[in-house]
This record gives sequence, structure tokens and C-alpha cells, in this order.
Amino acid sequence: MEIAVLNDKILPLSDLDPVYFDRGTFFGDGVYEVIRSYNGRIFALEDHLNRFSRSLAEIRITAVNIDDVRQRVLKAFESASIGNARIYFHITRGSAPRDHRWTDDLKPNFFLTVTDLPDSTQSKLNGVAVITYPDLRWKRCDIKSLNLLPNVLARQDAAQKGAKEAILVNEAGFITEGAASSFFAVFGKTVRTAPLQDNILPSITRKYVLQAALNARLTVAEKHFTPAEAMKADELFIAVTTQDIVGVVKFDDKVIGCGKPGNITKQLEEAFLKFTK
Amino acid sequence: MEIAVLNDKILPLSDLDPVYFDRGTFFGDGVYEVIRSYNGRIFALEDHLNRFSRSLAEIRITAVNIDDVRQRVLKAFESASIGNARIYFHITRGSAPRDHRWTDDLKPNFFLTVTDLPDSTQSKLNGVAVITYPDLRWKRCDIKSLNLLPNVLARQDAAQKGAKEAILVNEAGFITEGAASSFFAVFGKTVRTAPLQDNILPSITRKYVLQAALNARLTVAEKHFTPAEAMKADELFIAVTTQDIVGVVKFDDKVIGCGKPGNITKQLEEAFLKFTK
Repeated sequence: MEIAVLNDKILPLSDLDPVYFDRGTFFGDGVYEVIRSYNGRIFALEDHLNRFSRSLAEIRITAVNIDDVRQRVLKAFESASIGNARIYFHITRGSAPRDHRWTDDLKPNFFLTVTDLPDSTQSKLNGVAVITYPDLRWKRCDIKSLNLLPNVLARQDAAQKGAKEAILVNEAGFITEGAASSFFAVFGKTVRTAPLQDNILPSITRKYVLQAALNARLTVAEKHFTPAEAMKADELFIAVTTQDIVGVVKFDDKVIGCGKPGNITKQLEEAFLKFTK
Repeated sequence: MEIAVLNDKILPLSDLDPVYFDRGTFFGDGVYEVIRSYNGRIFALEDHLNRFSRSLAEIRITAVNIDDVRQRVLKAFESASIGNARIYFHITRGSAPRDHRWTDDLKPNFFLTVTDLPDSTQSKLNGVAVITYPDLRWKRCDIKSLNLLPNVLARQDAAQKGAKEAILVNEAGFITEGAASSFFAVFGKTVRTAPLQDNILPSITRKYVLQAALNARLTVAEKHFTPAEAMKADELFIAVTTQDIVGVVKFDDKVIGCGKPGNITKQLEEAFLKFTK
């Protein structure tokens, strides 16, 4: 008889809950988004839904209506009634006996949580330390997929070294992005970040940061740079949905600027917050 | 209140079953093995357990006793009482609220199934078609992890083109391995396959195939080759736990040899089966 084992429990395979056959677990065969609200208002919902829609299409999960996703997000956000919320959701291709290949009758699984957003006041005030880590990820990081083991290993290494984020460096020696953030360097009046062509996520926060920089009459350069160049920057910062802009004051062992978030970083933070109102 | 949504159902986050917080689903943060039995005997159990142990160590899942895994595998196999069984198992780092970083108190989740092995007689008799596909995987394919989305996309493309397997080609233009198999070419009396250094899985079937080749006084060359070279091979075959050796008779649009599995392939199949008895 075909059977399954869950930890120490043996049961007939046919009794297993479909959640255990989720292709999300077998293969990471799904895509996700993280959205946040500021004081009861969701920020950049349509940007995130557009990107989610693209991620689904790229991995050919076709049986999803994005209007349904929008309604679920809005309904969940309303039910939770959390002013500063973090909304995580993913869709996997569905549940089926393990086979890399899929059939078109699969019903996608939708999962979402609305949770309190951790406070990032101290990080923003004091800045954070980052470390560099090899970019081990696959070649389609433009897709926001559940294949995140390299990101997990990178961020754990950062945590163990007392840093908040791992900045990924590709085989050519260039910084791509943070393991869960975009990465920026300020040289004089120029804000620099890797181009989207560099196998990075089309970050929505990145898009608004670059807009904020242009609004502030700074120069924007989408051009990659090395860790050695980053160490010589006037300012460094990361950008991520859940914390928007956070100054980086230590890069590996090098203290950046005067060890506090820089003026342009702060200026961009303020400019960014205007978009969220 | 923090909440979760499962498809259309809204519930308090605290009511959610821990299975929905499995890091296997959030990140693919786990490793797996597939073992098979031949006529009631498990083949190469210790090889698989050794590799599993290494995979766990490489992603730093430390709270697993490999003797417990062995006992669970043996007990499950005995309970199922299937002569030609496929035994799949994975361990994920555990269940926790979503955060890339982990804490050492997590309890790993163990999942296993014993199922009937699909019959591969026809594939072995007639040979199979394969297609080439870009190797999009991460840079640690020596770890048998749950990050398998590139493999899924490759094998689905193969299926849609009427092929049984996708043969992955890296950026340098060399074949690495199949999306779920090892890949071999026979040139005269030489059996050639990519070296383990080429970011491929240390396949256990591959190991026994190479031993079978040496026993048969063939030359073994662990040296990579291109799709153009593969098309000129006398014979091609794939090797995978669930089917051991299967001749490849079509490579993209090119018919290999006389369109039937070759003599050396058949000779290796027979030699391989001796190991399983």
C-alpha cells in the first residue's frame, strides 16, 4: 500500500492532506509578493499586482485572475485592521503527486498573511551594517519566486556577523542587490544602483527611490559597481518594501562616511515618504 | 488582528496549522532524496543517506540524526510492502513565521512517501527523446535542495515538445546534466559525462554507471561536451535512480545512431542491474 510519513506518523498516502502535496514545497513552484501599509493605506498595490501578474506569467501559472487577488488582499487588509501592516502572499501551482511536469487542471493554492510590521525606527536612525556574500541565485531573479535558499543562506550569514543584510556579488565581481533589498551608493550628487539587466528583481521600492532622486535633482546612474567602489561611496543605503530606505553605515569591515546615515539618504527617505501619503 | 487567508478562507493567524509556516514552502529551505527498491530490496541506501547528510550539513540543518532517517525509511518501506517502490523524502528546516534568517530552536519537518514505481520498460526498450534547455539553476547544484523551479520549467518544456527529459546547457555552452538525471555520451569505447566540478549533483546512479563502464573495460572520461558533440555521439543515455539507464534516441531534432538504444547502453544496463541484486 502506498504510504506517507509525517515526522513519526505513518499513514496511507490517500489520507494525506493536499497541503503536503503542494508544489510550493516540492519545487518552490510558486511566486510571492510583500506589500505594506502606511497608517492604514496600502502603498503601491497596483505596482505589486502588476509584478505578481508578470511573475505568474513567466512561470506559466495561468489560472489566476489578478482581480481576485486584489479583492483578497483588500478584504484581508480590511479584516486585519492593522495600520502599519505587512501583507505577504504567494500562489503555488497547486497540489499534486510529485512530478516536475504539471498538468493544466491544477488548481493554484493561494496563501496570505497580514501581520504587524516590525518597527524600523532604530535601523533608520542609526543605520545598519551589511556584509558581502556571493550571488549564488538562479538566472531568473526577475521572477519573484519561492526558490529562496541562496537568499536564506546569505541573510543568515549576515545575521551571524551582526549585519542586517547581505549584499550579493556576482561572478564578474559586481554588486547585484541585497538578498532581500535593493542596494544604492551615493557618490557626490549621483545615486547609483545596478541596472535591471543584472539579473535582479525589478524592485518597486527601487523604482520610487530613483523617482525621489530625480525629483530631488540628483543624478541617477543605473550602472553596476564593485564592493571596492562601494567602500569609497559617500553614502550607502538599502531599499525594501517593509522599511523603505535604510542607511548603511558599515560595509563588511569598512565604516561608511561618519558612521551615521548620510544627508542624501535622509533627504531621499523624506521624499519617498511623500509617495506613501 | 493578525490574520491569514487560505484560498477564500480568512482565519486568525494563530489558528493556522504549522504546516503553512513550513520554510520548505516559503524558501525551499530543505533537502531531499529519492531512493528505489528492486524486487523488495532497497538499492544504495547508504549512498543516499550519505548524500542526504551532506546536503543537510551544507545548508546547516544540524538537528537531524541520520540514524533516525534510516530507521524511518526502513520502517516505511516495510509498512508499504511494495516490491518496486519509489521512496521520496525531504527534511525542511522547520515551521516558523516567515523570516529568511532562522533560529537554532527550529524543529526540522520530515516528510516521506513510498509509492509504486512507474514502469519504464517501454522507455528502456525504445529509448527516449530529449531536448536541450538553458541551465538556469543556482550555483550549488551539488546540494539536492527543494529549489527546483528551473528544473520544473525545463522538464515541462521537454514534455510539451514530446521529450522525456531536458538536458541542461550552461552559459559556456557545455552540457551539465539532465534536469532530473545524469547525461552520458558514448564515443567508440569511451563513456563521457560532465565532471562533478561543473555544478552538478553527485548522482549516485552516475557513480554506479561509471563503475559498470570500468568493469566492462570501457574508458570513462569525466569531461564536459557540447550539444553539437552530443549529436555526433554513437550512443547517448540518461541515468536516474527511478529508471537506472535509459537510452536516448533523439537529441533535439537529431536521431542518434539507428534510432534505437545502442549496444553499449544495453551492456551497461545489464551490468548496472547486477549491482542491484
